[in-house]
Amino acid sequence: MSRQKIYLDKLARFFQIRNKLLRQALAECLGTLILVMFGCGSVAQFSLSKGTHGQFLTVNFIQMGGHLNPAVTFSLCLLGRDKWRKFPMFFLFQTIGAFFAAAVIFGMYYDALWDTGCFTVDGENATAGIFATYPGKHLTLVNGFFDQIIGTAALIVCILAIVDPYNNPIPQGLEAFTVGFVVLVIGLAMGFNSGYAVNPARDFGPRLFTAMAGWGSDVFTNGWFLVPLCAPFLGAIIGTMIYQVMVGFHIEGEFRDRQEAKEQEENLQLTVTTNSKSNSNGKEANC
Amino acid sequence: MSRQKIYLDKLARFFQIRNKLLRQALAECLGTLILVMFGCGSVAQFSLSKGTHGQFLTVNFIQMGGHLNPAVTFSLCLLGRDKWRKFPMFFLFQTIGAFFAAAVIFGMYYDALWDTGCFTVDGENATAGIFATYPGKHLTLVNGFFDQIIGTAALIVCILAIVDPYNNPIPQGLEAFTVGFVVLVIGLAMGFNSGYAVNPARDFGPRLFTAMAGWGSDVFTNGWFLVPLCAPFLGAIIGTMIYQVMVGFHIEGEFRDRQEAKEQEENLQLTVTTNSKSNSNGKEANC
Amino acid sequence: MSRQKIYLDKLARFFQIRNKLLRQALAECLGTLILVMFGCGSVAQFSLSKGTHGQFLTVNFIQMGGHLNPAVTFSLCLLGRDKWRKFPMFFLFQTIGAFFAAAVIFGMYYDALWDTGCFTVDGENATAGIFATYPGKHLTLVNGFFDQIIGTAALIVCILAIVDPYNNPIPQGLEAFTVGFVVLVIGLAMGFNSGYAVNPARDFGPRLFTAMAGWGSDVFTNGWFLVPLCAPFLGAIIGTMIYQVMVGFHIEGEFRDRQEAKEQEENLQLTVTTNSKSNSNGKEANC
Amino acid sequence: MSRQKIYLDKLARFFQIRNKLLRQALAECLGTLILVMFGCGSVAQFSLSKGTHGQFLTVNFIQMGGHLNPAVTFSLCLLGRDKWRKFPMFFLFQTIGAFFAAAVIFGMYYDALWDTGCFTVDGENATAGIFATYPGKHLTLVNGFFDQIIGTAALIVCILAIVDPYNNPIPQGLEAFTVGFVVLVIGLAMGFNSGYAVNPARDFGPRLFTAMAGWGSDVFTNGWFLVPLCAPFLGAIIGTMIYQVMVGFHIEGEFRDRQEAKEQEENLQLTVTTNSKSNSNGKEANC
Repeated sequence: MSRQKIYLDKLARFFQIRNKLLRQALAECLGTLILVMFGCGSVAQFSLSKGTHGQFLTVNFIQMGGHLNPAVTFSLCLLGRDKWRKFPMFFLFQTIGAFFAAAVIFGMYYDALWDTGCFTVDGENATAGIFATYPGKHLTLVNGFFDQIIGTAALIVCILAIVDPYNNPIPQGLEAFTVGFVVLVIGLAMGFNSGYAVNPARDFGPRLFTAMAGWGSDVFTNGWFLVPLCAPFLGAIIGTMIYQVMVGFHIEGEFRDRQEAKEQEENLQLTVTTNSKSNSNGKEANC
Repeated sequence: MSRQKIYLDKLARFFQIRNKLLRQALAECLGTLILVMFGCGSVAQFSLSKGTHGQFLTVNFIQMGGHLNPAVTFSLCLLGRDKWRKFPMFFLFQTIGAFFAAAVIFGMYYDALWDTGCFTVDGENATAGIFATYPGKHLTLVNGFFDQIIGTAALIVCILAIVDPYNNPIPQGLEAFTVGFVVLVIGLAMGFNSGYAVNPARDFGPRLFTAMAGWGSDVFTNGWFLVPLCAPFLGAIIGTMIYQVMVGFHIEGEFRDRQEAKEQEENLQLTVTTNSKSNSNGKEANC
Repeated sequence: MSRQKIYLDKLARFFQIRNKLLRQALAECLGTLILVMFGCGSVAQFSLSKGTHGQFLTVNFIQMGGHLNPAVTFSLCLLGRDKWRKFPMFFLFQTIGAFFAAAVIFGMYYDALWDTGCFTVDGENATAGIFATYPGKHLTLVNGFFDQIIGTAALIVCILAIVDPYNNPIPQGLEAFTVGFVVLVIGLAMGFNSGYAVNPARDFGPRLFTAMAGWGSDVFTNGWFLVPLCAPFLGAIIGTMIYQVMVGFHIEGEFRDRQEAKEQEENLQLTVTTNSKSNSNGKEANC
Repeated sequence: MSRQKIYLDKLARFFQIRNKLLRQALAECLGTLILVMFGCGSVAQFSLSKGTHGQFLTVNFIQMGGHLNPAVTFSLCLLGRDKWRKFPMFFLFQTIGAFFAAAVIFGMYYDALWDTGCFTVDGENATAGIFATYPGKHLTLVNGFFDQIIGTAALIVCILAIVDPYNNPIPQGLEAFTVGFVVLVIGLAMGFNSGYAVNPARDFGPRLFTAMAGWGSDVFTNGWFLVPLCAPFLGAIIGTMIYQVMVGFHIEGEFRDRQEAKEQEENLQLTVTTNSKSNSNGKEANC
């Protein structure tokens, strides 16, 4: 073993965390950091370059990664596929990741932000929209709430269809791509009203950062920030219900029926076998 | 089993449908709903934002999912791969799904639709094109009919090539992607005349909704609505014929030839074996 | 067997072609037809709608399918992976497919072509560029020739890397995607000079059709048509040489070396075995 | 064996290189050549056509191939997954490949470059940006350095996550796609400041070529060229550290723990087996 390997091994043993939940939460944190960094970065590039270095499509192209989303964790907990204690832990670490992602982009485009000249939420040169979502002028709060619910419900239905273990399975490793593609599509079809957050952590973390970094309390005006923070969970409930009632329950049910039929048959056979055994003291049917 | 699991199990047993055709039709319904929701949503976003939140490419990017299409079901029934009773059932549920998808998008962009100001089929601010297709000004009805036939025929040829069980198979789970990609390409190459419906359910469901939601009977003017409703089936017949005559029959034929040759050989061998057996009472040829 | 199945079976037996080369050529013909139909269609949509229904990107997005290309067949024949008699057959049928594809697009956009108003090769409303390639104004014939050679050489290097049987293999079914992606990239990086034909059949078939359909002999002016007809084959030779000298020969050689080493070992073992057999009349070493 | 095969075989034996490192370096050289050719070509097409034959998105679409990157080799060497002697060799050949790629694009667009009229680094018609990166006007050197570090760190984190052998593995053959996609995303999110080189070879090779081909020593003004040459390595160190501390060490550690537990168990079993053997002379526990 070379000296490099020995040092690497020591480092690895020093930093290793053995608590599985904490490790998963750290991975969620890094994932959200990378993702929101790309997400905010693309909006920053589009917005600060006044459109010369990007288009609306490029902005959507990278809002991928629906899995790193408290609403998705919530839906999987609802279905009993994840444990409930994961939910607050993931929510917290995803928000922390999103917060730091905003900080990195802020540092990266620091010169360009000063070049634009103002840290405002409203107006022509408003830059707050780089980090968090704000409603379009035509949008009422009720319609905005409805908008976020539909967007998240659509996302959840698609994700449940993609990861449904009883359904036509997508090759492993492509699931992330497919989920990302769904988020892209949602952005292209449902992003006009308020920029499709459909992810409480992705919206709240950077919003908190902007509040601290110079945009001030304006980022919380009118209570809009509550919509992308709360509506996605309602949307997750509705999306889960729709998928389960229209597809999920039937597939699971078929699987369970087959399982039960098989068990009954086995029980029957077992009984028969036991009987024949006690009768004839013969060999086992299945050896 | 925790309390949550028990409730989930009860719910699952309550909602489970055991009729396979109905279950498949429900899945088609949900699939078409999601798909048309994204499809109409992207056109709405592009159209209502006057192009600032989308481009023509983004609109095509999500018209995916050629499988949820009565013309495709029709073609598979023609080839004897699906049962004919599936066809009306799927057509109905796909249309229902498309109808509700239009309703959801109508609700989602309700504020924005009122902001644009009019529910008209013709004119500068016409919004009917968000939901169903209308012919371009340069287009005669004959050319439009020809256009829909070619579009659907091209779609069917590609789908048959993709799902051909005797042909070079595409990895399972990627078929949907590939079909979607074909629909994207058709939209980019054949969408100028009338917006490539190539799907009777996707066009008729939302058209019905717009007729009821305020656009009125104008959506049926000039009989154009019959073109995307009927031409695709003619296109499906032509596309199926072209593919089968140029590729399909030969591949199937080769498979059948090999199958028959194998059977004959086996029959021969069986005869020989039987003979040799009766003659010499020897051991089996293949042990 | 239902009546439908019986009719289908009869049809299949009637149309079945048993000559493998002809069948492959027919498949090439249909493939090229579909591909060039989409290719010409996208340029037509972009050009006839004056850019409102497409962008330069969408045009490139569908020029996919590098395999249906006489230059690629030529390269595979050079390497001894395909038989030389395939080359003229495929070239002919690919050109026929491209010819009919141009005819279909001509019919599909007949109204729109008349709406634009002229069937000219030069000038503002020139429509000949929908079907075949013409050089940009800044381009000399020498640079154009060089351009086509580089483009085809780059395509061949990428295709050989993708389909190299000794190299890191791409999952089957994704090869077509990858090749298509390469063609897209070539169009985005090398399409400015003359629109990257890099495919003699794709360029010559539609050019012939336009000459017959009303554009006249202008489509052959200045001898430009010879460049996309001849340069790709020169490019195929250069591309094949570069790939083989820099990567191919070494990988094949390693495989051959290992093969030979294995054979030698087996021969040795065989000799030893034979010797020991003749000596001791014992059992075989490998049973 | 036909005459063609014999000649091919002779050629193959003549050109075959048996040194593995040199062969890998040649493959890196060709890969970088192809990649940078497409990369520079797309910028050239976009820039020389004044935007009519491309958009900012198309430029990013082909900057793919993060693996052909000295910073990535550096990171893999740091982790002990590649040998250090690979690093200078790959760096050299990647730079040579990038140099020749610039030469090919220079030749291909020679007419178009003269048509634009000047070989300058600054100003409206500056063409030096086709080949290497230059900072935006708003950018200070410090922020530019930070920008390159963040970009490379993000790239390295993503690549390590993709190729992590202990992590959820991406299907082989799709890794290249995924890495390419990450580079695309970085270009769309972090390309505004200075055009995201994040690859010392890709930037320095073409810069050297432009210095020799007519742009002169201006390409080295202000020392900017040192930023994309040095910052990526610092970014690679930071990216590697972040990934390892937050994800890598824990997964590796878990794997090592399990490995060690297994070994211990086996040792124990071995001891027991040996004991029981010597005691009872019985059969082996695992047959």
